[in-house]
Amino acid sequence: MKIKVVESVLKANDAVAADNRRRLDAAGVLAINLMSAPGSGKTTLLEWTIPAVGPAQRCAVLVGDLQTTRDAERLGGCAAETVQINTGQGCHLSATQVAEGLKKLTLEGVDYLFIENVGNMVCPAAHDLGEHLRVALLSVPEGDDKVAKYPTLFQPADAILLTKVDLIGVLDYQRERMYEDVSRLNARAPLIECSPKTGQGMERWLAWLQQQRRRQTAHEAPTRA
Amino acid sequence: MKIKVVESVLKANDAVAADNRRRLDAAGVLAINLMSAPGSGKTTLLEWTIPAVGPAQRCAVLVGDLQTTRDAERLGGCAAETVQINTGQGCHLSATQVAEGLKKLTLEGVDYLFIENVGNMVCPAAHDLGEHLRVALLSVPEGDDKVAKYPTLFQPADAILLTKVDLIGVLDYQRERMYEDVSRLNARAPLIECSPKTGQGMERWLAWLQQQRRRQTAHEAPTRA
Repeated sequence: MKIKVVESVLKANDAVAADNRRRLDAAGVLAINLMSAPGSGKTTLLEWTIPAVGPAQRCAVLVGDLQTTRDAERLGGCAAETVQINTGQGCHLSATQVAEGLKKLTLEGVDYLFIENVGNMVCPAAHDLGEHLRVALLSVPEGDDKVAKYPTLFQPADAILLTKVDLIGVLDYQRERMYEDVSRLNARAPLIECSPKTGQGMERWLAWLQQQRRRQTAHEAPTRA
Repeated sequence: MKIKVVESVLKANDAVAADNRRRLDAAGVLAINLMSAPGSGKTTLLEWTIPAVGPAQRCAVLVGDLQTTRDAERLGGCAAETVQINTGQGCHLSATQVAEGLKKLTLEGVDYLFIENVGNMVCPAAHDLGEHLRVALLSVPEGDDKVAKYPTLFQPADAILLTKVDLIGVLDYQRERMYEDVSRLNARAPLIECSPKTGQGMERWLAWLQQQRRRQTAHEAPTRA
């Protein structure tokens, strides 16, 4: 009985997610769901990325947090449009919350919609939001053992970003251990070492992102459409 | 209807948690629920703490992770008894999982039971496990904005540990911002800056822990009994 309730909630979420995806496809927007633990650097990544894609490309952001509008305030200066979604006690964004957020955006003319999920390595991964691509972030200070511990986040990711790599020298980080876990769980996704702070690896991230956008506008199947 | 289901699940959890607490009280064990984001240093804290309380005090550990037995392996060498609980896709420990874990431990003669929850700043905070005390960890690399963003974790905490303080010099960390949020949300809990790596602040943590144990054995009401 309990399992049936969970299934029905997830099915209802999936139906709304499919609607979101149709809405995004109709507007020609590439939607990217960013997921990670709290403090892995999702907002900092966007503060670097949005100016880097250039003025010819419009970016919109939906940002989820239990409380506060701090992330939306940080991103308001660089994104064309930003909507903060406060989930209260909710541990992840739901497709319904994203649908409400989409209503507040003018999607036509937007190239990239970044959905910054609630900082949490578990629950967001179970909820389709209607995104085209999933990006999982993992920061060096979180430790080299997290990929194996949180497979539901890393297995379905379309790209994996190892962030704050400028701290590898400061910490006792066993890069090989993390690479081994990724190659076992998800050999398909590019693993990009990067640091918005030093710029290391950021061009590779940008190139991946722009390639995904070109594929979409060329009407090739996006990875998750 | 959906809310009723959630309430009933939480009520069932609370009933099992109350049983767990009675079981722990009968055995004279102080149970501490450690909660934080992934990689804040829960396991590293225990690797320091268990030898530090000394051989006259017995420590047992229940450790929760979605997958792997890595944390239990790390702690097996120092704790008297260690049980790894794999939650599969579960984003937090439940009272029922802890009840199963308690059956695998010889509680009599144990002074401290550390329950290392799944790395997640949201869902564990909503689930009583039968613990006497809740300790919330937050590491410096996660950023100075997390207390306000995750109030459900920090508001009911009996102690708050700011870990990896040896990295404050390396990162642009605004300590005052974090202190302001804590004083607004939870003025009752001690806020302990520490680093098991350098030893900074660890004596204060140990003193707090031992004081809680003395209060329990003197039959004073533990904070959360």
